Amino acid sequence: MQYKSIDWITPDNVVRILDQRLLPATVKYRDYTDARGVARAITDMVIRGAPAIGAAAAYGVAVQLWHDKTDDLEHLQQSCNEADELLRCSRPTAVNLSWALDRIQARLAVSPADSADALRQRVLSEAHAIAEQDVAINKSIGGHALELVPERATVIHHCNTGSLATVGYGTALGIIRTAHEQGRDISVLVDETRPRLQGARLTCWELQQMGIPHRLIVDAASGYYMQQGQVDFCVVGCDRVAANGDTANKIGTYNLALVARANDIPFYVAAPGSSIDLSTACGRDIAIEQRPADEITHIGKEQITPAKTPADNPAFDITPADCISAIITEKGIIRPPYKQNLAALFG
Amino acid sequence: MQYKSIDWITPDNVVRILDQRLLPATVKYRDYTDARGVARAITDMVIRGAPAIGAAAAYGVAVQLWHDKTDDLEHLQQSCNEADELLRCSRPTAVNLSWALDRIQARLAVSPADSADALRQRVLSEAHAIAEQDVAINKSIGGHALELVPERATVIHHCNTGSLATVGYGTALGIIRTAHEQGRDISVLVDETRPRLQGARLTCWELQQMGIPHRLIVDAASGYYMQQGQVDFCVVGCDRVAANGDTANKIGTYNLALVARANDIPFYVAAPGSSIDLSTACGRDIAIEQRPADEITHIGKEQITPAKTPADNPAFDITPADCISAIITEKGIIRPPYKQNLAALFG
Repeated sequence: MQYKSIDWITPDNVVRILDQRLLPATVKYRDYTDARGVARAITDMVIRGAPAIGAAAAYGVAVQLWHDKTDDLEHLQQSCNEADELLRCSRPTAVNLSWALDRIQARLAVSPADSADALRQRVLSEAHAIAEQDVAINKSIGGHALELVPERATVIHHCNTGSLATVGYGTALGIIRTAHEQGRDISVLVDETRPRLQGARLTCWELQQMGIPHRLIVDAASGYYMQQGQVDFCVVGCDRVAANGDTANKIGTYNLALVARANDIPFYVAAPGSSIDLSTACGRDIAIEQRPADEITHIGKEQITPAKTPADNPAFDITPADCISAIITEKGIIRPPYKQNLAALFG
Repeated sequence: MQYKSIDWITPDNVVRILDQRLLPATVKYRDYTDARGVARAITDMVIRGAPAIGAAAAYGVAVQLWHDKTDDLEHLQQSCNEADELLRCSRPTAVNLSWALDRIQARLAVSPADSADALRQRVLSEAHAIAEQDVAINKSIGGHALELVPERATVIHHCNTGSLATVGYGTALGIIRTAHEQGRDISVLVDETRPRLQGARLTCWELQQMGIPHRLIVDAASGYYMQQGQVDFCVVGCDRVAANGDTANKIGTYNLALVARANDIPFYVAAPGSSIDLSTACGRDIAIEQRPADEITHIGKEQITPAKTPADNPAFDITPADCISAIITEKGIIRPPYKQNLAALFG
């Protein structure tokens, strides 16, 4: 892969983010020098994908501190707290945002900085750790998943969970990638993923570059292919897994899971520990982001509906634990009962 | 309604079809003077919707004969057969095409024409009968359905089944319209219906003109609303109902039915007799049209995927009878077991 979803660029110490809104037509990177800019980039989906926005939040705090030239530690700590606050609420559903920001807070709590420079170094070091670990975690997820992947398999994948959705390698798409790299004959039915078409725009782009066979379908065609016996399993990422296994993910995940269950097809969730939120009891407690109507009523600048057509645009839905065959994490494959088994590995 | 999906225009004796590909931005009618043109209009989806294309096929034969100025009855009968053949295979899934063409053949078999002029008159008279009966049938469907519609209801509707999909009034949308006209407090969650966006483009347009409250959603969000208890029932049209109740309809209907069943929400199919095909035993025997990939990879002229992305585009799917709560016809509401009950009313 030649592209990186997010990077820290020296010697300028800026956060460089690939603008995913413009893909695949245009590859454009944007540089950010403050937390407000990074928070806006997350809200506006310049960068998206739960693990990627977690890393972006961490780098967003770091970049704020590196461009605040004060020597006053107290002032810089205040700046750090303000950055945290801005970034924490930049999107509501993915737990990775607060997970990454909590990691920075915890690092500072364990080893408090005794100077402004030390604070900058510590925060950046934690952000780098989050980014590096993300790639390693994703590769572990891919490795663990191998035992679930037949020698020859056609899988349905929803949204985008690849290098673009993470710091690198990908979660659900990382599973597909590992299987492909290990010589499995794997091909992908790519849900286009309305309304923002992450499947059509981003997943097809990544799969094409990796040389993994794929065909794009509309989201509502998944049942057609399952009914014909053409699908071996479904695999998706997640924005938050609750303590009982209920999973928030891109709108349409719940429908896909129900259609898979009705057709006796395994439905897997790829979940790095950063997306597992044992402090949330169940799916009902997860806030679902409502996004602007024009993501549905318009495509690009063109309005496809009559003027003034009202549209509702929940960005995520909740897949109940009982629709999920297994949750694949960097620590291994978790099967039901999820409440006990998630707590055992991540408690 | 000021618009008509299809009409026979005198004194020119042309078939006038509203070009639905351009809606809602542009209201443009096209006139046809031969069967080949009408068949092309059906294939290219200038006109779509099973009842509408049935009527179009009938008028397509008529217009062929009215513009063939011969006095030679045998020649004109040959022309009639050629028109039938062209129109019969203009799209494969909806049975209404062959149903309408069979009606013309049957009329001519019962009372053979003894002159070219008589043949023209007879075919046109049968086409007019088909068109007029379509509207009456749709109103009957709406009337029968009233007993299924609560005083206050939110319904999910897939694709377009309104005046545009029929000669007038609509089937599933006709049910919604009847309920609204009868004072029921009915509102519609409109599936946008990828890839061709008939819901976003056509159904929203019709609902707006009728003043029926509605909100547009992406197809894969249906489960989100059902899970929250916001949906009272789903209602769709059909392209073909097999003898056992299996139903071919717009891609995504099967997914919607499975999601409804998992949420204990009634799933109704509105089916005029012209869409019921007792000669087809079950869904497996229904041919599913595969349409061009660029309906998914492009929106308008803009490509949304990387170049050369392969896409599969089945236009319909099969909803098994056991996912359908009731089939609403002009002769009444049909419940399971469908094989017996369909045969009893339509055998």
